[in-house]
Amino acid sequence: MKVLGLVVEYNPFHNGHLFHLRQSKELVKPDYTVAIMSGNFVQRGEPAVIEKFSRARVALKLGVDLVLELPVVYALQDAGGFATGSIRSLDHAGVTDVVFGSETGDLSLMSEVSKILIEEPDEYRRSLRFHLKEGHSFPNARKYAIRDFIGRRDSDLSFRIEEIGSSNNILGVEYIRAMKEIGSKIRPHAIKRTGAAYTDENHKGEFSSATAIRRLLSKGDLESVKEAVPQESFDAILGEIRTGKGPVFREDTESFFIPYLRLLSRSDYGRYYGFVEGLDARFRECSMSSDMTAFTNCVKTKRFTLSRIRRLMYYPAFGFTGDLIEKSNDLGPQYLRVLAFNEKGREYLSSVKKMVSIPIITTASLWRKVVDQALKRKMEIDVKLLEEQLERDFKASDFYSSLYRSPEWRSRGSEMLSQVIYEKGHF
Amino acid sequence: MKVLGLVVEYNPFHNGHLFHLRQSKELVKPDYTVAIMSGNFVQRGEPAVIEKFSRARVALKLGVDLVLELPVVYALQDAGGFATGSIRSLDHAGVTDVVFGSETGDLSLMSEVSKILIEEPDEYRRSLRFHLKEGHSFPNARKYAIRDFIGRRDSDLSFRIEEIGSSNNILGVEYIRAMKEIGSKIRPHAIKRTGAAYTDENHKGEFSSATAIRRLLSKGDLESVKEAVPQESFDAILGEIRTGKGPVFREDTESFFIPYLRLLSRSDYGRYYGFVEGLDARFRECSMSSDMTAFTNCVKTKRFTLSRIRRLMYYPAFGFTGDLIEKSNDLGPQYLRVLAFNEKGREYLSSVKKMVSIPIITTASLWRKVVDQALKRKMEIDVKLLEEQLERDFKASDFYSSLYRSPEWRSRGSEMLSQVIYEKGHF
Repeated sequence: MKVLGLVVEYNPFHNGHLFHLRQSKELVKPDYTVAIMSGNFVQRGEPAVIEKFSRARVALKLGVDLVLELPVVYALQDAGGFATGSIRSLDHAGVTDVVFGSETGDLSLMSEVSKILIEEPDEYRRSLRFHLKEGHSFPNARKYAIRDFIGRRDSDLSFRIEEIGSSNNILGVEYIRAMKEIGSKIRPHAIKRTGAAYTDENHKGEFSSATAIRRLLSKGDLESVKEAVPQESFDAILGEIRTGKGPVFREDTESFFIPYLRLLSRSDYGRYYGFVEGLDARFRECSMSSDMTAFTNCVKTKRFTLSRIRRLMYYPAFGFTGDLIEKSNDLGPQYLRVLAFNEKGREYLSSVKKMVSIPIITTASLWRKVVDQALKRKMEIDVKLLEEQLERDFKASDFYSSLYRSPEWRSRGSEMLSQVIYEKGHF
Repeated sequence: MKVLGLVVEYNPFHNGHLFHLRQSKELVKPDYTVAIMSGNFVQRGEPAVIEKFSRARVALKLGVDLVLELPVVYALQDAGGFATGSIRSLDHAGVTDVVFGSETGDLSLMSEVSKILIEEPDEYRRSLRFHLKEGHSFPNARKYAIRDFIGRRDSDLSFRIEEIGSSNNILGVEYIRAMKEIGSKIRPHAIKRTGAAYTDENHKGEFSSATAIRRLLSKGDLESVKEAVPQESFDAILGEIRTGKGPVFREDTESFFIPYLRLLSRSDYGRYYGFVEGLDARFRECSMSSDMTAFTNCVKTKRFTLSRIRRLMYYPAFGFTGDLIEKSNDLGPQYLRVLAFNEKGREYLSSVKKMVSIPIITTASLWRKVVDQALKRKMEIDVKLLEEQLERDFKASDFYSSLYRSPEWRSRGSEMLSQVIYEKGHF
């Protein structure tokens, strides 16, 4: 049996996603397709443009059988933490093959690099420290250190190493590292991504990037959005607009964050993950900024990427303590949260349930019952960590719904009232 | 030498305030007049309609010589904590006479009642517990317990005790209690407040209440505001509107509080002062409310007044831990913060400086220097408590300025850039 696993955000689901989904299925020819998807907050450190259940339903309609939610403690982390949470979830879910897009499609190079990340040879670590000291961001410093390390050994690989710096290649390397770390039997596949147009932020047309589409949405240019996304995705977006929920943008969090950041002292930041290298002081100094763009620009240096700063803003708000994130990256997700499934997904879920080693939560409000059953079945879970991870997911969703346009939905958007999506019939 | 002390909010300064100020001066015939004023947040649990320096300047123009800021840890407390902070500040400032408005003007009754509050006789405590158990709010239960207690002793006093329940009488009682508690030599005076119109929220005209005036402001009815406040106050309000700072309303804090409250768990509330009698659970349960009115109505019971709920919302945000508030009420304010003075006020300040037992802070950014000098002069202050109280004031002001209408002022409103107001010349 072949089970295809995909790591996605679908923010929103666009033509490029559909293309990638079909290519992956063609490559693996799976019996089932499972996607692990960021929930209401995405790796760029911002709210998803439409909420998770709506995005999960679109994924079902376009060929995914089962959509799981990546716990927010991973969804709002850098490539490393994001990959750890995603791959371990897919591994728990019994996935046999993972396909990811990359700029190169060069699996052997990625595998080589991931080995360096795991083994961290002394020479590599010295070089990494050197480049960090020069003031480079962590992703860049790492890229240079890898190039230094490989360059001395293999001039051919070294020649191709520049490409490792692109965001999708970094993710690919991290996926492979995460697989190796847990000795996963998942087979990784890299698909070369198509065309420059794909990453052009301002491009309109069939293969606009998610960023470009969100920009069109914020301008209210639904005509152009319609061109760039499958009909099913467009209908979902329209539905969210009509009910007064979406679209939700980074700007909508501003009237929360601007007062909020002024309430935190340097020592408050110290209690949360990632406020290292003076970031606590920079956050504090920049807290009098008048808006979020001013704030992130104020904090930003060559060393800290914008995405990292945006993600970090959520860490105190959502309670991402150092202990929680380190334990999460060490022990992995303590549950699988199901957002949506079709008939095939339901069939697959019931077969998985017999062998899975962490609890599967399908109804948020029943989570305690599920955990009790898991303990009876002697699953080796860290209950405290499970509660902490799950509480962050609930918090994040309740926070997200406070950003809805309609007051009615703001109060009805509680995670405790949410229902898993089960689509019968065929698409 | 006679020094008149007044406890004020001036939110905003209106004709009734001017009337009271003049009456008080006529009564005491002071050499100097000192006001202790709430800063950017007031006892009703909301932001002041215009910021503290602007309100302090108006007070100077209308006859106050020196305006001190009541630390926010007291300004956002119930009548008891509010009075403790205010009276101890005035006592430190060398005030000889305090005049306050009350519905009765019956000082002997207030004094009698304040004695009960301090001594807390067993019979009174039993009665208080009984009325609390019946589900009454603390202010009401206390009123009934006082009535029970006095009724058995003095039927004449008992007859008048009903009046103690009104808010200004409660404050009067608390002022006297606070004086007795520290053995203050301040002489209290009660002035009977004028006319029913004064407290009518919808009344327009010369003696509108502050609440009515804020309502007019929120409707943009500046014509009616002009009738109800002295010209100096009106000019200040106009000035704040023109610079894009004020007016600031409770509603302006909504887009912060609605997402914020969803981030707090029951155990988070437990770390802060006043979340007793199930208020932590109620706050948690009501956190999915769509707006602040819905939230406070959801939390409210016969037992908890709206003002109390509104104040409590600030306790986690501003970090009012149980330890901080209890120590503050026990040891009193650890500094005097000067907002504004005229020539006479400056003269008075320099005479006070020689005998005062807590540091006087006139420039926020120089606070550390002032504290160091105070320690050299062996003042008996609790430096940790001082830092904690002052940090809350700074936090509150930085938070407040994030609510300004103009982005420019939002970023320039830092407490660290603030300047004390010194008005030379005579008014």
